[in-house]
Amino acid sequence: METLTRLEQVIAERKAASPDASYVAKLNAAGIEKIAQKLGEEAVETVIAALSGSREEVVGEAADLIFHLLVLLQARRITLGEVMAELDRREGTSGIEEKASRSE
Amino acid sequence: METLTRLEQVIAERKAASPDASYVAKLNAAGIEKIAQKLGEEAVETVIAALSGSREEVVGEAADLIFHLLVLLQARRITLGEVMAELDRREGTSGIEEKASRSE
Amino acid sequence: METLTRLEQVIAERKAASPDASYVAKLNAAGIEKIAQKLGEEAVETVIAALSGSREEVVGEAADLIFHLLVLLQARRITLGEVMAELDRREGTSGIEEKASRSE
Amino acid sequence: METLTRLEQVIAERKAASPDASYVAKLNAAGIEKIAQKLGEEAVETVIAALSGSREEVVGEAADLIFHLLVLLQARRITLGEVMAELDRREGTSGIEEKASRSE
Repeated sequence: METLTRLEQVIAERKAASPDASYVAKLNAAGIEKIAQKLGEEAVETVIAALSGSREEVVGEAADLIFHLLVLLQARRITLGEVMAELDRREGTSGIEEKASRSE
Repeated sequence: METLTRLEQVIAERKAASPDASYVAKLNAAGIEKIAQKLGEEAVETVIAALSGSREEVVGEAADLIFHLLVLLQARRITLGEVMAELDRREGTSGIEEKASRSE
Repeated sequence: METLTRLEQVIAERKAASPDASYVAKLNAAGIEKIAQKLGEEAVETVIAALSGSREEVVGEAADLIFHLLVLLQARRITLGEVMAELDRREGTSGIEEKASRSE
Repeated sequence: METLTRLEQVIAERKAASPDASYVAKLNAAGIEKIAQKLGEEAVETVIAALSGSREEVVGEAADLIFHLLVLLQARRITLGEVMAELDRREGTSGIEEKASRSE
């Protein structure tokens, strides 16, 4: 699962590149609104693939969604580690099921 | 980063539980439409938190989004490993930047 | 099609009501983030209904989406007339097809 | 408010055109998944404009959202009149506030 750690580093490096040369740099130059828009669009595509796409399409859209989530987190200066710590915390205390009561 | 591997296992176990006792089981009993809807809703909340929420809110929404993505993947019988392999593959061949040309 | 004009008026009146008595007032008291979140959620439900719901479900979700769009517009002090004027303008000048080049 | 009635007719005519010549025909040729995806994307843009865009941007995104909603309804062979009747029905019987209890 070190894929995400590596991806996080790659994105951090690309942020410093020229917007002409790097998609990540281009997104960051465009601002958090553009990054959030892309995340929203990838989520819509994931929803649609889940309902009527092939397994391969769902895998591809999920990869796109995670990639753009990492770009968004970095734009807000949040590390993946912080999100993982939050997931651990939920599981640890009252558990993921805590989420059930909270989210409905 | 073994958080996600552990979370994937927890979700797999909960799927077998009673819908009354487990949020994951309840979502699965409701069907892929309901799971996809929840994923979409969490993405909307992540977009909004990214634009006008605190760091803590973004962390919380990102955790919710990842959690529901894992539930969705399992409902389609896709492992996290498959998605990570796809992310590795992109980075490996033409690189993440391949995404740039593809997605726009 | 005076339905929307009437609905716009009803929403304007409800905004002034107590958040305890009116859903519209409650949404406005919660702020533009909450209103935008509801719009996003209704759009997700419309997407899902379009793909796998009955005609009745699509009608219901479309009605929800329009209702929340009107609430959002009023929260930003925009009249439905302004949006209709924009739709007329597009159709009038280069036509709706202008949209094609713009949006892709 | 006859704008929408006229727009509905224009969309119906364009559906019969060649996908090369018409954006509407192109969307319909691509299928309901593509149309639903566009609706979802326009909703995301409306959410973002509502939070951090100018009045003009919100007006433009709302127009885009309504346009694509009409395309989607026609793809499912639903008339705007049916959606308006549903909105009237809600207002007429227990009122829009009925929505409050239902949607939360």
